[in-house]
Amino acid sequence: MTLAHGFGGIVPPLVTPMTEEFEIDTDSLQRLIEAQLAAGVQGIFVLGSTGETVHLTDRQRATVINVSVRTVAGRVPVLAGLIDTTTARVLEHAAVAQRAGVDAVVLPAPFYARINQAEIIEHFRAVHAAIDVPIIAYNIPVSVHIKIERPTLLQLLEERLIVGVKDSSGDEVNFRSTVLTKQQYPDFLVFSGQQQVVDLIFWMGADGAVPGLGNVDPTGYQRLYQAITAGNVAQARQEQERLMRLYTITAVAQQRLSPHAAAFGGLKTALQLLGIISTNVVGRPLQRFNAAEVEQVRQILVESQLL
Amino acid sequence: MTLAHGFGGIVPPLVTPMTEEFEIDTDSLQRLIEAQLAAGVQGIFVLGSTGETVHLTDRQRATVINVSVRTVAGRVPVLAGLIDTTTARVLEHAAVAQRAGVDAVVLPAPFYARINQAEIIEHFRAVHAAIDVPIIAYNIPVSVHIKIERPTLLQLLEERLIVGVKDSSGDEVNFRSTVLTKQQYPDFLVFSGQQQVVDLIFWMGADGAVPGLGNVDPTGYQRLYQAITAGNVAQARQEQERLMRLYTITAVAQQRLSPHAAAFGGLKTALQLLGIISTNVVGRPLQRFNAAEVEQVRQILVESQLL
Amino acid sequence: MTLAHGFGGIVPPLVTPMTEEFEIDTDSLQRLIEAQLAAGVQGIFVLGSTGETVHLTDRQRATVINVSVRTVAGRVPVLAGLIDTTTARVLEHAAVAQRAGVDAVVLPAPFYARINQAEIIEHFRAVHAAIDVPIIAYNIPVSVHIKIERPTLLQLLEERLIVGVKDSSGDEVNFRSTVLTKQQYPDFLVFSGQQQVVDLIFWMGADGAVPGLGNVDPTGYQRLYQAITAGNVAQARQEQERLMRLYTITAVAQQRLSPHAAAFGGLKTALQLLGIISTNVVGRPLQRFNAAEVEQVRQILVESQLL
Amino acid sequence: MTLAHGFGGIVPPLVTPMTEEFEIDTDSLQRLIEAQLAAGVQGIFVLGSTGETVHLTDRQRATVINVSVRTVAGRVPVLAGLIDTTTARVLEHAAVAQRAGVDAVVLPAPFYARINQAEIIEHFRAVHAAIDVPIIAYNIPVSVHIKIERPTLLQLLEERLIVGVKDSSGDEVNFRSTVLTKQQYPDFLVFSGQQQVVDLIFWMGADGAVPGLGNVDPTGYQRLYQAITAGNVAQARQEQERLMRLYTITAVAQQRLSPHAAAFGGLKTALQLLGIISTNVVGRPLQRFNAAEVEQVRQILVESQLL
Repeated sequence: MTLAHGFGGIVPPLVTPMTEEFEIDTDSLQRLIEAQLAAGVQGIFVLGSTGETVHLTDRQRATVINVSVRTVAGRVPVLAGLIDTTTARVLEHAAVAQRAGVDAVVLPAPFYARINQAEIIEHFRAVHAAIDVPIIAYNIPVSVHIKIERPTLLQLLEERLIVGVKDSSGDEVNFRSTVLTKQQYPDFLVFSGQQQVVDLIFWMGADGAVPGLGNVDPTGYQRLYQAITAGNVAQARQEQERLMRLYTITAVAQQRLSPHAAAFGGLKTALQLLGIISTNVVGRPLQRFNAAEVEQVRQILVESQLL
Repeated sequence: MTLAHGFGGIVPPLVTPMTEEFEIDTDSLQRLIEAQLAAGVQGIFVLGSTGETVHLTDRQRATVINVSVRTVAGRVPVLAGLIDTTTARVLEHAAVAQRAGVDAVVLPAPFYARINQAEIIEHFRAVHAAIDVPIIAYNIPVSVHIKIERPTLLQLLEERLIVGVKDSSGDEVNFRSTVLTKQQYPDFLVFSGQQQVVDLIFWMGADGAVPGLGNVDPTGYQRLYQAITAGNVAQARQEQERLMRLYTITAVAQQRLSPHAAAFGGLKTALQLLGIISTNVVGRPLQRFNAAEVEQVRQILVESQLL
Repeated sequence: MTLAHGFGGIVPPLVTPMTEEFEIDTDSLQRLIEAQLAAGVQGIFVLGSTGETVHLTDRQRATVINVSVRTVAGRVPVLAGLIDTTTARVLEHAAVAQRAGVDAVVLPAPFYARINQAEIIEHFRAVHAAIDVPIIAYNIPVSVHIKIERPTLLQLLEERLIVGVKDSSGDEVNFRSTVLTKQQYPDFLVFSGQQQVVDLIFWMGADGAVPGLGNVDPTGYQRLYQAITAGNVAQARQEQERLMRLYTITAVAQQRLSPHAAAFGGLKTALQLLGIISTNVVGRPLQRFNAAEVEQVRQILVESQLL
Repeated sequence: MTLAHGFGGIVPPLVTPMTEEFEIDTDSLQRLIEAQLAAGVQGIFVLGSTGETVHLTDRQRATVINVSVRTVAGRVPVLAGLIDTTTARVLEHAAVAQRAGVDAVVLPAPFYARINQAEIIEHFRAVHAAIDVPIIAYNIPVSVHIKIERPTLLQLLEERLIVGVKDSSGDEVNFRSTVLTKQQYPDFLVFSGQQQVVDLIFWMGADGAVPGLGNVDPTGYQRLYQAITAGNVAQARQEQERLMRLYTITAVAQQRLSPHAAAFGGLKTALQLLGIISTNVVGRPLQRFNAAEVEQVRQILVESQLL
């Protein structure tokens, strides 16, 4: 089983819409997915960091995966994150993902316990041995507090434990080295979690981008991607700079809320204002945007001509 | 419901014995608990960091709590950790702990998502509202990557959300300020997770210590505690210095393994050599001690006259 | 006094050639400068981090500045770093730089004492009040352990304390925001210290790059810059990817030496092999490359067709 | 040349009194030293972090050393810090210190350039080879951003490059291991930079403490030291807890100023209020206490019965 040859493009990490009671709002999730597909996304990624996965119970995670796979119904690949503290717990999530029929899983390093690079490799070996779904390594040191170092990545590739990497390290120099790894492993899929330098990501030769802001403006990112594909550098830059202004919705509540609450809350508030999801509730203990912050997001959407 | 007035002393954070198949070894767990009680511990703490809680599935966590509460059978208080990424998941663990009948729960800040101090307080409010078991705050920045700051702790106290704190921050100056908080809140229980400065902890006026090394030498820590209680400063220091040498079992594999694997593996290897637990298996992806490392631990136990 | 309107391009941060006795090798310094000018650099930057400024005595710093200004003799602008722990010491260096006739000074935040953003602004005010030379802010958190935050940069601009910024933070997303500041302040000069993403730097709209590797291959960076200027995206990328392979000279000794010794030593060893400087000595306590490492650098130069 | 056998006790790191023009206030410095000697200190330490050494020019540093040595006139040992970025610069300071006749120099790791442990050892070798004054290693990671690791310390001892260590790492567990090194090297002098756990420092067996707060209340620290020496545990603790309350003078301006400005400014403001030094000026770019903050310091001094 593998992702189609040539997989790439814009694969937004979906937010997880919630009801006022902190349950999964499956109607909103379906609307969100349909809006993404209508805009032409090349894939969707559920249960990533942007999906607030660590805020969900096991039951809720299963709901997100099952609803997503059924809604997409094979129109594009569905990627699912396997974010949990350690191997035993990840194996449970992996089994659920495989049963649901996802096209790939996205696997970060374990966290809470301080581990080393050899133990990261063991983790990937254990998950790889347990499921028959392609694995994409997820490099997200800001949350797991350890990097998947370059020799580790090469070892994972050498053992054919992974088919790609999603890099959210924020280190473009290292990312460029990762992209150049494709010269040796042409089928290796290289994705970036950046949302403000997506034009550069593609210019360096990456396969795809996983921008959280793609939840709010999937059409903008498609324009950016098409401009790049057409070799239209100036238009790609212009579109990216426009999206940078839109991205300020995640800065609106930065003084009051934590970085994650400000980011996820900004995306959810915008999606609620756009009529796609029903609430801007975020997982506890994060707090949702207040009325003044909602109004600021509305202004930014208006200036960006999305409202 | 509350811990008895005057609760304090040595409350070791128990390791979680595992079978070769990474399941809970309940026989070993029972033997470990009986060994602790025989040595005279003042309480036990299960599902802490030393208990490798993040390596256990929800089912396994429940097993540890239920076996522990049944085995202790009221002879000393049983504390249980509620370590998970966020409120929704912690509430599930909290319900299990309450049903099992633990005497207190020990609650760290959420992790993975970057949160702030206000969100830590929200987390405690939500857990406090959901259960009828005393809560002890767990300050462990090395794993959750955020400190419970002093104003936050005072707010938790002010709202009567917690009955105590277990501090594993490694910052003795701040710990001393925490101890002095008892001048204003005399019933506030102050515990330290340190194992090499337990004499100092008590000298500063703390109520108790939660030393991982207490798994291996509970009698030594009782001698230390009794010496302190009797005002015998010199004997307490001598005992602590002896325990520091024993603590080198956690340094044996430091070059090869991660810090947590080296620490937990050292404790489990010693307990296996002492005949108390059956394997030195640690949770995946951590790796167990190899033969050469086991032999080094044996030497240290012999030098420490425990073997 | 100001830099000519439209200043930009490649401005390499020169290494400081040393004799076996750790004194400034002024002959080598002159040869290095002539080699740079012959390759067509748009400016030179002396006494930066790459210049090992913190390894030099005050007398040696003055020598570097005076020799450099006399050798360049107005052919391109000369920028000089003002790297020191605090205001009083920086004012001494600033006076020397002004007397020597540099075209701009490059000023980082103070270090050793933990300072805050307001104190960074005070530092710039004090230096600005003391000299009549344009100041470029130098953002280098890896060495001074504090960032010049965005509001601080805007305040420095608002008070007209700086004419530009050299960013070595490694954070391209923030750098892009800095570049966009030029929309409001068109004369604001934005330079990056990156050497492996110089094509991207210019694509984002920056004025210039300050690549340490430019010491070794100034012609390559000029080709890259000309390709960008001509809108030849593919050629710029190809040249940058070639320079990335050359940059591995700074990784040769990474296991044995510290990051700075490995980087500066790699550059100096290459320059010695190319016959431009006379030794590969680095400032104490850093250690120079050994014979095996020199041989590896030679191989890389051969593969890169520089030897 | 060596410090007298049995050197130890309280050795305060003196602040550096400044005039309104940021010059050394030598009259105030002399009064400060006399006040310390009158209180019975066992030694003084000038040009440490508390002495704001990095804020002083080379000329000012020489003034501080020369005035201090002349004023003390052999009544107690004088220790002088050698804080600078790298070997070449430290050698200049070392020559000045030797000529002035200090009894020992206190040497931290170099900073700004990222170095490794081997280079720290080279640094000590170079300084040791250049002067005939005992060297005390200075472990201060908060400012130099690298620790002197335990194997490095043992190597420095093995090569007889140092006679002692001053530890300001804030890690009491590691400090205790350092103290136990005295079992193997009985003449090795172990000092701590802590000021709020000085009783514990001595209880662990350290030789001395270097508390910044000793500038303000040298008599209090002498009482604490005498209580420890007399085996009076309870009185030592009581005195230390009193000094903790006095230490809040360094927290008064913590919201407005940087950590170092708040700490040094608190000490200097108190000394000015006590009539010992003439201004509370701190080195630029740090800002001095404002009127409201001065008033708060006065209140704390009154509550502590020092005013």
